[in-house]
Amino acid sequence: MSDSITQYGWTAVPRSEEQLLALIDSSNTKPIDISDLPFPTGELVDHVMEYAKKELTEETFNHSMRVYHYGAAILHAHHSTLLPLSTPYTTSQPTFLTTYLLAALLHDIGTTPTNLTSTHLSFEFHGAVLVLSLLKSLSAPVSLAESVAEAIWRHQDLGATGSTTAVGGLIVLSTLLDNVGVGFAEGLVHGRVVEDVVARWPRKGWSGCFARVVREEVGRKPWAHSTVIEGFAEKVEGNKVMEKYE
Amino acid sequence: MSDSITQYGWTAVPRSEEQLLALIDSSNTKPIDISDLPFPTGELVDHVMEYAKKELTEETFNHSMRVYHYGAAILHAHHSTLLPLSTPYTTSQPTFLTTYLLAALLHDIGTTPTNLTSTHLSFEFHGAVLVLSLLKSLSAPVSLAESVAEAIWRHQDLGATGSTTAVGGLIVLSTLLDNVGVGFAEGLVHGRVVEDVVARWPRKGWSGCFARVVREEVGRKPWAHSTVIEGFAEKVEGNKVMEKYE
Repeated sequence: MSDSITQYGWTAVPRSEEQLLALIDSSNTKPIDISDLPFPTGELVDHVMEYAKKELTEETFNHSMRVYHYGAAILHAHHSTLLPLSTPYTTSQPTFLTTYLLAALLHDIGTTPTNLTSTHLSFEFHGAVLVLSLLKSLSAPVSLAESVAEAIWRHQDLGATGSTTAVGGLIVLSTLLDNVGVGFAEGLVHGRVVEDVVARWPRKGWSGCFARVVREEVGRKPWAHSTVIEGFAEKVEGNKVMEKYE
Repeated sequence: MSDSITQYGWTAVPRSEEQLLALIDSSNTKPIDISDLPFPTGELVDHVMEYAKKELTEETFNHSMRVYHYGAAILHAHHSTLLPLSTPYTTSQPTFLTTYLLAALLHDIGTTPTNLTSTHLSFEFHGAVLVLSLLKSLSAPVSLAESVAEAIWRHQDLGATGSTTAVGGLIVLSTLLDNVGVGFAEGLVHGRVVEDVVARWPRKGWSGCFARVVREEVGRKPWAHSTVIEGFAEKVEGNKVMEKYE
């Protein structure tokens, strides 16, 4: 299999979050100090971190950092059952995690007040187009840039059938956990990891905040792709798992 | 409601092809000479027609022209039940049909031998990104360019819930009719219109051809969005409605 496919997280996994959660063996769910989780470094990461901090609201930036750390914790505990064994997600082969980090940081770039209101495009697609352009301007490898873009345009493409990319699947699991609380009962991450992550990157009322974003998107754009998730804003507001951390 | 929303076909319609087909009143299904169907004109249309003829295979170009004419025939017969009455789809207000024509001509641009194989991106997204760039370079109004791009990235985003754009919904109905035969029994277009359209833009074995494209896409890209349509290639090959025109 092509190096760039495995390195940049293109490997196919089931699209269905149910099928992905069924791959979780909760006996593997253990606490880990979040400072022990790998965090990619390098010029590209620095540029994108700076961009994300500048462009995103504080709440959305914190959400993006939680999404990264939940994903890294999920891989740490469950990589052997969740991903094909050939997937090079470790720190000695940082490309997969770098791709995942950039996707986490940028997946909601379409929701900034400027970006959401300056187009009729559904925010996922607008965001992915902006990101493809940004990463190419930062001389990212094309396959990395495209993997991040693919994960972003599909990050609300939920459904029972077909496949998605490994990075994309991890983004879906981590965003569903943070936004709706899905996956916690199945043992995606340990409760102590959640406590540490929300302490380090506080939610600051994220449930209410993101529900407002969803309502603004579908209010301004009644055709928007976000409408396919029925009762989306209500599901976000009803996030019982994360309620105590709001 | 904003002019650019209705003019460029952004108006929300149900995403579900079942719900759209349920809006069809088959007593409105009448034959029409395809030369009596409106066909947009102008510099932008000329440029895109030239581009499409050059880039697409003959089979895909013919498919795209059939998709346009099926859509125009559907509007002619069923606009009163299918679209909000305010939608300006007529020749006296050509922007809606121009947007639809460009979406029809370019929706499969991601499937050319070059475009399909030069990226790991799912073809719908890659195509939409190329089209956004093309139309902006041709100085198309931004809202038109974005409406075409939105229709393209979502043209295989099938499902029971939520909404899509009017142009996008029409693309889905017309492509499903041409690719899989869905909608004919419900009276989307009259049988004589189908005969005239396939006589003018022959299928040249389109069913086998497009099934091969689908197989190549998911063969090269097992993560691709086309995988979410289960048995896609088989459904295309099994298109009984269009079999006699192959």
